Amino acid sequence: MSDGLADHRAALALDAELALAPIETALAAQEGPVADAMRYAVQGGKAIRAVLVMEGALLFGIDRAMSAPAAAAIEAIHAYSLIHDDLPCMDDDDMRRGKPTVHRKWDEATAVLAGDALQALAFELICDAVCPDTARLALVRGLSRAAGVGGMVGGQAQDIAAESAAAPLTLDEITGLQAGKTGALICWAATAGAVMAQAPASRVRALQTYGECLGLAFQIADDILDVEGDAVMTGKAVGKDAAAGKATFVSLLGLDAARHRATSLVDTACDALSVFGEEAQSLQALARFVISRQN
Amino acid sequence: MSDGLADHRAALALDAELALAPIETALAAQEGPVADAMRYAVQGGKAIRAVLVMEGALLFGIDRAMSAPAAAAIEAIHAYSLIHDDLPCMDDDDMRRGKPTVHRKWDEATAVLAGDALQALAFELICDAVCPDTARLALVRGLSRAAGVGGMVGGQAQDIAAESAAAPLTLDEITGLQAGKTGALICWAATAGAVMAQAPASRVRALQTYGECLGLAFQIADDILDVEGDAVMTGKAVGKDAAAGKATFVSLLGLDAARHRATSLVDTACDALSVFGEEAQSLQALARFVISRQN
Repeated sequence: MSDGLADHRAALALDAELALAPIETALAAQEGPVADAMRYAVQGGKAIRAVLVMEGALLFGIDRAMSAPAAAAIEAIHAYSLIHDDLPCMDDDDMRRGKPTVHRKWDEATAVLAGDALQALAFELICDAVCPDTARLALVRGLSRAAGVGGMVGGQAQDIAAESAAAPLTLDEITGLQAGKTGALICWAATAGAVMAQAPASRVRALQTYGECLGLAFQIADDILDVEGDAVMTGKAVGKDAAAGKATFVSLLGLDAARHRATSLVDTACDALSVFGEEAQSLQALARFVISRQN
Repeated sequence: MSDGLADHRAALALDAELALAPIETALAAQEGPVADAMRYAVQGGKAIRAVLVMEGALLFGIDRAMSAPAAAAIEAIHAYSLIHDDLPCMDDDDMRRGKPTVHRKWDEATAVLAGDALQALAFELICDAVCPDTARLALVRGLSRAAGVGGMVGGQAQDIAAESAAAPLTLDEITGLQAGKTGALICWAATAGAVMAQAPASRVRALQTYGECLGLAFQIADDILDVEGDAVMTGKAVGKDAAAGKATFVSLLGLDAARHRATSLVDTACDALSVFGEEAQSLQALARFVISRQN
């Protein structure tokens, strides 16, 4: 069992490494601070979304070389969102992934532009995914919706509005907000392989359920880390939510119930993949890793 | 001749109106300040890029309903770029299209997010263009490159870097900068119809030449308006470049030579379309309008 886990970890590390290669290639000819900031921002993360794309694609016999452009695309979108979320006018963070945020290392203009260019790059990368044109267009459509005002941007807007709201958010409101802010991209990543394979709707739905539960569990784990985590391990400031009087899954449920909820969501996520048999073990291991992580 | 011009103007006004409809439809279900800011930002412009898409598509028998999603996409990208360029950390502008900029009417966070969501929306809209999947993917790939660090964002980064550079830019440097900052999107718009029609390379090249010359003429006209224009007519501050000691086509060439250059570029743009015969009259009229405009 421990050997099996080590195998999964090696596979996930391989995914993460391969996912950054298409970004490096696309930026190879680009010079200047904006391109430097783009390369800087995509490095040093866990690349969980890229892993989801690649492991999800393997379920359908799509190898890592074929899915790497889509995995790179979601990492580019994720990196852009972190750069913009860290801006002084948003969450105003100085550290990210254990290093200075882009606007601290360069300046705000470079941070805005690097984020903007990473979003554009994501859509360029998708065009290189190895699958039928119809499937590639479905990836474009899905990613644009997941990233837009009905998804990630909408969730971030709700999050910022909540900071100046009279009353803290309710559990339902936080769940809805997180479904947009982090859930939409995670669901896109989990289902990208099925979309590439033009898989039957029941398979897409199974991965959708996995992605939804994983996304929520991931956010609860983040809230727990903000209370219990170590700034050195997480690579960013901790205790910010409590200091800001912000409602989180931990403040609303309590630490024990939040932990229980995350575990239960991961169980549901893993069960949803039973239709794939043993092939789904990597994705199931990833889900368990997400709630046990220290950063 | 004057009736002909009036006909062209009516056609161009129709293009501009139809191009905003897909954006309104896509945002119809969205509430909150970010969606409001997105709607606000796409209104009130001349929609020249949308007109280029629609008139370029008509050359290949692609009607306005078929090209409207692509026309809407380029207007969404353009509106996003204006919102972000106007931010305090960039050009710090208070007025745009005769009304307060988004960060002045709302706040910086809303401006960053509305821009981000408009970029995502652009790629969603392209997926609705009525043409073969391969052509739609070519539109996605072309737009992502034109908007990214090798195109518009790269040009804007050079523009900002020039402000703190020791020496003002040379004519070659400004020409290169503008080819990215404004030229890349204008070229995409001019060639989008040919891409949708999967037209022969020679036709695409003719529209590419038209777009390149038009983009540069457009920028020279902007520089002339910054010197000669009226803030009420242009809807934005004038005289900013000279006040900032910024090199422009006017400061480098002088007013008369700049005007001559713009006229000569428009001639070249119009000549490139001779292969299309009378069908290209609207695009030729548009090019002449661009350098005669007051705003």
